[in-house]
Order: sequence, then C-alpha cells, then structure tokens
Amino acid sequence: MYNFVFQNTTKLIFGKGTISTLAQEIPAGKKLMITFGGGSVKSNGVYEEVVKALQGREFIEFWGIEPNPTVETIRKAVEIGKKEGIGYLLAVGGGSVIDGTKLIASSILLERDPWDIVRKGAELDKVIPYASVLTLPATGSEMNRGSVISNREKREKFAFYTNSPEFSILDPVTTFSLPDYQVACGIADTFVHVMEQYLTTTSQSPLMDRWAEGILLTLKEIAPTITKDHTNYDAMATFMLSATMALNGFIAMGVTQDWATHQIGHELTALAGITHGHSLAVVLPGTMDIRRNEKGDKILQYGQRVWGITAKEDTEEAKSKAIDQIIEKSEEFFRSLGLKTRLSENSIGEDVVNEIVKRFKERDVHFGENRMNDYMVTEKILNRVK
Amino acid sequence: MYNFVFQNTTKLIFGKGTISTLAQEIPAGKKLMITFGGGSVKSNGVYEEVVKALQGREFIEFWGIEPNPTVETIRKAVEIGKKEGIGYLLAVGGGSVIDGTKLIASSILLERDPWDIVRKGAELDKVIPYASVLTLPATGSEMNRGSVISNREKREKFAFYTNSPEFSILDPVTTFSLPDYQVACGIADTFVHVMEQYLTTTSQSPLMDRWAEGILLTLKEIAPTITKDHTNYDAMATFMLSATMALNGFIAMGVTQDWATHQIGHELTALAGITHGHSLAVVLPGTMDIRRNEKGDKILQYGQRVWGITAKEDTEEAKSKAIDQIIEKSEEFFRSLGLKTRLSENSIGEDVVNEIVKRFKERDVHFGENRMNDYMVTEKILNRVK
Repeated sequence: MYNFVFQNTTKLIFGKGTISTLAQEIPAGKKLMITFGGGSVKSNGVYEEVVKALQGREFIEFWGIEPNPTVETIRKAVEIGKKEGIGYLLAVGGGSVIDGTKLIASSILLERDPWDIVRKGAELDKVIPYASVLTLPATGSEMNRGSVISNREKREKFAFYTNSPEFSILDPVTTFSLPDYQVACGIADTFVHVMEQYLTTTSQSPLMDRWAEGILLTLKEIAPTITKDHTNYDAMATFMLSATMALNGFIAMGVTQDWATHQIGHELTALAGITHGHSLAVVLPGTMDIRRNEKGDKILQYGQRVWGITAKEDTEEAKSKAIDQIIEKSEEFFRSLGLKTRLSENSIGEDVVNEIVKRFKERDVHFGENRMNDYMVTEKILNRVK
Repeated sequence: MYNFVFQNTTKLIFGKGTISTLAQEIPAGKKLMITFGGGSVKSNGVYEEVVKALQGREFIEFWGIEPNPTVETIRKAVEIGKKEGIGYLLAVGGGSVIDGTKLIASSILLERDPWDIVRKGAELDKVIPYASVLTLPATGSEMNRGSVISNREKREKFAFYTNSPEFSILDPVTTFSLPDYQVACGIADTFVHVMEQYLTTTSQSPLMDRWAEGILLTLKEIAPTITKDHTNYDAMATFMLSATMALNGFIAMGVTQDWATHQIGHELTALAGITHGHSLAVVLPGTMDIRRNEKGDKILQYGQRVWGITAKEDTEEAKSKAIDQIIEKSEEFFRSLGLKTRLSENSIGEDVVNEIVKRFKERDVHFGENRMNDYMVTEKILNRVK
C-alpha cells in the first residue's frame, strides 16, 4: 500500500424529500446564485422544490450550463457573478452543471480567464463555497474536487481540481424522470470510474479491491432493474449512492490509478460529441484488451469476483481465453444497458481516430498507470473497438 | 434505503514516516497538550518521533490515560487543560487514549463535570480541536465522533459523541511492536464493529452490504499473516486501514445498526475487566444464535459471502444447520486469533452474568436493532456463551 492523504469534507444529505432542507444548509449572509442546465428541472418539479425550499431568500439564476460544460458558457456566469458580488453557488442538475459551477466558484474572486484556471490550476483559498442538488447519478462530481471543462473554440476537454462542495443533496426521486439513455450512460460512467481506480497493479490493497468490486457487483445487481424501471426507489437510491461512492476517494486510498480510458473518451466526446459515459463504454474493452499483458492478473481477479469467470486451467492459454471472455462480458454488460459499444455503430469514423492519434502524438502524451500509453497504443485501442 | 446525512471531515494521513508531518498539521498559535497512555510509546520509538516532529514547538504532556479510559483520569487532564489554557490536543496511542482525549477536548471550555458530558452530551461548538497519532488499530476512534468512557466509582461504561479529530496520522510501522493479544483484540473489535452495522434487516443497501463484507473478507484474508507476524508492512497497513474504515460511517449509510453485542460487551468489561475487543468475540456468537429467528436471512448471506457456507437445500432445517455452522465458523475465527471465546475460559462467572441481568432489568433497557433485546434476552445470550 502506498502512503496517502484522504480527506473529503462534503456533507452528503441523502433521501426522499431532502431538498426541503436547503435553507438550513446555505448561510444566509451570502449572495446566492443558482446554476442550472437546460429546462429538465422545470418539467420534473425539482426547480419548484428548490424555489420553495428557499422561500424568502434572495438569489439569482443562471441557466444554460450544457452537457460537457464549455468555458464559453462559464465565462458568462463568472461575469455576472463578479458584477453581482456572488458569495455562494448552488448547482442544481447533473455532473455537468456541478462541474461548470466548480469553475464559476473558482473564477469569481480571480482576475484570470477561466480557461487559464482549467489549464494551470485553481487557487483553493480563493474559491467561493458552493453546493449541489444532484439530479443525475454518474460523474461523482457532487462529492469530489474534480471538474471537466470543454473549450468549444479549441475543441478540447480537460480536467481541473478545486475545493469539494460544502454539501450535496441527493434525492433519488429526482432521477425517476431521467431518459433511458442518460441512466445507461450514468451506469457506464460509474462502472468505468471504478475500473480506472481498480484495474491496476494487483495486491496493492485487498480492502480497496473489495470495495471497488463491491460497487461493480452492486451495479451488476441493480442494472437490470433500473434499466427497465427508473421509478424503483431503492434501486435508484442504490444507483445514486454507488455513483457518488465510485469517485469520492473512498476506493482510491493507497493505490495507483489508471484513467487511460477517460483520456481517450474525453477526446471522443470533444471531437465527435458522444456522451461521456457512453464514450467510456466504447473505449474500456479496448484498453483492457490492448493492455492485457500488463493487466492480465487483475482482469482475472475482476472476472472471477465480479462475473464468476475463471480460467479452466492454470495455463497461459486458459488464462488468455478467460481474459477474452471477461472483456466480452464487460462489453455485453454495457450493451445490456442499451449502449452501442463500437465506434462505427456510433458513427465515429477513421477521421476522428486519426485526429486523436495526431493530437496525442503532437502533445507527446504518456498516460494511464505507469504512463504506459502513448499515441501508438491509443491507435491500437481505438482500432480494437472500431 | 433510509434517508441519511453523512459527513466525516477528518483528514487521514496514512503511511510509513508520516509522523514527521505533524508540525504542518497543528496550528502554531494554539497551546498544545499531548496525551498518552502508558509507556509503550516510549519503548517503541513513537514518543521520540513525535517530539522530533514538533521540535521548536511548546507543548505539555499528560500521561496515564488507561485502557477503558476512566472519567477519574480525564478529570485530572481537564483541570490541567483549563489551568494551562490548552487550545489543541494531540492524542498519541490507541483508541483508549483517543477516546479519553475526546472527553478532555469536550470538557475544557465548559464548567460541567466530564461525566455529565458523557451522560448528557457534548456541546459541539465548545469542543477544542484535537488530532491523533494512532498506534493500535481497533476502535476506529481516530476517524469518528464516538468515545467510550468508564466510571471506576460506579463501575459503568458509556458512549458519548463529540466532534471528530481534525486529522489522524496512521503509520503502520507503529503497530509492529504490539503484543499478540492486542492485535487479536484489535482484529476482533474491527470484525464486530462491521457486524454491528451489517447483521441487520436484509436488503437495506446492497452496496453497504458489499462494503461491510469487503472488510470482513479482508480481515479473514490477512488474519493468519498478522496473527503470526506483526511486522509485515502491507498486512499491518491493511489491518490499520480496515479498522478505521469499519467505524467511520462509510459502511453505515442508509442502513439500521444493531450494537447489542457492544452493549453487553461493555458491561463485561466494566464488571470483569476483560479487554473490549475480546469481550465482543465472546458475546457475538451468542447474539447471533439467540437472534437467529430475526437475523437468519442475513446470517445466511454473511455465511455465504464471507465463509462460503451455504444451506444444502432450501428447507428450514438445512438453513438452520447452515446457521449453526456459520456461528461456529465465526467463533472459530476468533479462536484462530488466540482468543478464548467462552465466559468460563475467561474466569467470568455467574455472579457477573447475574449483575448484568440485574442492571439491565433495573435500567429497563431495550437495545439492538428494533430495540428487541432486554434483560431476559441478555441472560439467554450470556448463557449461550458460558
């Protein structure tokens, strides 16, 4: 086990009806801006619940933080926030709204362009406090320090880190009206978040392995239910909790991480517009297969403990066959959610692959655990999932 | 899943050599008192490491917080703390030193007797900040709000709640010199902490179940190694991390809890002096057996997932037999650590049992999940483990 420092101060307020506690949680003395995505929170009643919970409090609204939030949109919010002297932010929506709000919170007190903050880092003592009401389980942004921002002009997408939310309210009822596709992408996103922290060098931490497998087994268990029915409270609550626990540091103590699938997925989203969680479902079987020599033992552990697949004998050939089955099973799982798992099925052609390879070559990137992936490996991975 | 609020702000600083970071973590402006147990931290080098890390800083030392810390001892520390204007506490030791320090931190700013705070509650805005350097994995006190204090005069033992530590430093190397018996009790304590949060109504949270089972499986995996060899860094690190994760709220989200085994165990310690973790190893097989009607399904899930024991058929008889085996296996696990699991083996006689039953009758206690245990059930449980 490696040395580590863990701290996650976000207060998680979880369950039916908890939006009504909002006013107690937001300090009265600060000028509040509430941030939103599109209009879905108006049609599903969440907007009304939030407004009712804050009755008698003044706030301004900022609408239009889009999926894969862009720095172009955030700049507008920051301008308003500076002009109005905003001292507290409340994000109401999914991971994109929260990610965007993290950049607003990190920019209001500074004279730097938000894209400069994304690329060069936030100043943690100059971040205004913010919180969230989550409506889409997927990114884990409601309980971590990360945020991913796109630059429309440059067609780029990068992560940056800031303070974590003061609190996040997770009411599973808010997820009942989600479209099937968003639920599927949320499950895939959660699954791959776990895999990025788990599919690494073996035997680093038996406990972290068990907890990662615990989330994967839970997703496997509930996926058939929630794929069909988004109104099963207990199943949606379990999904929501799993998504938060998948990326709040709880399964990352003392272990290495990978994130190669994400790095490639972000490019697919930036260039082809594919939804984030969906991009990961496409790429993961490719990274597993191309890195099977380095990750074979961990893939076998994952296959055995999560899918009950074991090598028939203790030979390299039998193990290799089991690895094939395990990768296939993982891809099948994503397909069972209703996601198309190949680039071609998602109308992503060779031009996009070539552009990614070109970018990675130009940037001379080396990424993933032990930085073992470069543009050539990326090409192989993308060709594997054509 | 039930509604819940989760927040744990403690900063966990984990790994070899981390005691050297102490000075960075403790604010310079506050007058510091360091609290200790007996002299073991002097013989194992931890005291020296702490002093070296705080070179140039002023502090006073308070020695002698005993196992099952008593309010009598804490009163002395509080008196000194008030007189010296102490503003920050650092506990160096095991769970008892940390528990005792929690009561000191909760008492210094108040004019109430510490026992009154234990019985009627702390005032959270009047608790001075405190931190810990943990040397004995067991109680989880290093990352939670709980503390258990004994009253020597009254021969009583009760829990109270306060703020959690600002930070806790966990260096597995500090555990290398622990006596076998303390390691055994620490494993038992950790195991039963998980069971208290897990052996409850089924199907409340599939994820919390998996995480609880994950800790149990990890303890099962590492116990043979660490029982023999306390100097295996990775195994001791895993033990230390497991003990902290077993009682920091991470496996308790949205589920009911039991704590019946603890309530009885505390009385055994108060009356017969048996070490806390050991008392739990004695009582648990009894609570499992006597509550088998209510907890049978969960015992079967535990048996299958942790010990690989399943009922041979889907009949009540076969299930009952499996439950017998699972309880026996749990007791065997504790015995494999070197712990005697029966009252008589620990020289605890009928007089102690009678006194506990009498106390519970007088106090009219109803405890455990759904408050289904009273003095009569307690008598059955204790007779089961004679």
